Amino acid sequence: MFITLEGPDGSGKTSQLPALKEFLQDAGYEVVLTREPGGTPVGNQIREVLMNLKNVSITPRTEILLFLAARAQHVEELIRPALAAGKIVLCDRFGDSTLAYQGFGHQIDLDTLQMLLDFSTGGLKPDLTLLVDVPVEVGMERKRVNSTEWNRLDAYTLAFHERVRQGYFALAEAEPARWVIIDATKDKDSVQKALQTAVTSRLGGG
Amino acid sequence: MFITLEGPDGSGKTSQLPALKEFLQDAGYEVVLTREPGGTPVGNQIREVLMNLKNVSITPRTEILLFLAARAQHVEELIRPALAAGKIVLCDRFGDSTLAYQGFGHQIDLDTLQMLLDFSTGGLKPDLTLLVDVPVEVGMERKRVNSTEWNRLDAYTLAFHERVRQGYFALAEAEPARWVIIDATKDKDSVQKALQTAVTSRLGGG
Repeated sequence: MFITLEGPDGSGKTSQLPALKEFLQDAGYEVVLTREPGGTPVGNQIREVLMNLKNVSITPRTEILLFLAARAQHVEELIRPALAAGKIVLCDRFGDSTLAYQGFGHQIDLDTLQMLLDFSTGGLKPDLTLLVDVPVEVGMERKRVNSTEWNRLDAYTLAFHERVRQGYFALAEAEPARWVIIDATKDKDSVQKALQTAVTSRLGGG
Repeated sequence: MFITLEGPDGSGKTSQLPALKEFLQDAGYEVVLTREPGGTPVGNQIREVLMNLKNVSITPRTEILLFLAARAQHVEELIRPALAAGKIVLCDRFGDSTLAYQGFGHQIDLDTLQMLLDFSTGGLKPDLTLLVDVPVEVGMERKRVNSTEWNRLDAYTLAFHERVRQGYFALAEAEPARWVIIDATKDKDSVQKALQTAVTSRLGGG
């Protein structure tokens, strides 16, 4: 089973992942925890280019293609082999981030993006996507308070992040069977419980 | 005018470019000499990932997307502004390399590649493409003798490089008005003369 976590910046999804992984391991599953962009040595080199604050001149098209390059490597080198070995892959961001950030956020044509995305993933889609949602202002404030690093991608405007959030809602609405929306304005333990319930329900049903 | 140089590895095209640039400058043109992958700071970071011999695991899809990411940056940051300023842009490799190497060489679907290519260039095409051609064995031998560096992309088989060369011929045949094939088995001065003649004829005709 391929499970992805999506959500606006500052939603806290990344900090929920180790506990979710442990929960699944305690239930007897083999779990691979990974993230995008990155997940492989080549992917991490690409991540460096994407996150580097000096690269202010990076264009939206370049950004998309770099994310997709890291993803192509990630799918082929790590995700597909792990799924083939019967493991649960738990991935922090995946293709829906491209649609939400580059499509809805940067307003790049969604059909073109979907086609580029299909090329990079070879058609692989998550079985379950957990949208860890917070209002944009809450997310940005959390980021400002908690984060030790502030990367190039955080520097976009509030309006951009609002488009991203609404984009996630549109994606979830279009594929309700795949998405579960988690209210992440609640405390950390409640959010973790909600994530565990969503995953358990899907595993039981599968 | 946007002029690209294409050709198999070891064709010597790169070493011809400074003299061709000087020739055009002497004729009164402003010339920008650039190369792919690279051409911009972001592009050069991407080039590092592509050329790094340690990155043996890089997949064909990842490779394509990285080349296209570097190209998107190159087009928007350097090539289009230079053309808009009335300069001649002389570029060592461009989109046709993707079609020849990834399409014909790695046998990735050409229609898909063309669509990816259009995304990365925003539709920009060269006005003139000079195919600096040598038989594969000659190119590989020259590379072995002259090159101080041997990068990851040189490690493909002879059969791969033969498909690349035949791919270039197919591309040139499909768009004869854009391509000029230069026989680069001749001595360096003769090749330079042939390049100058091809460019002059196009500039005169345009």
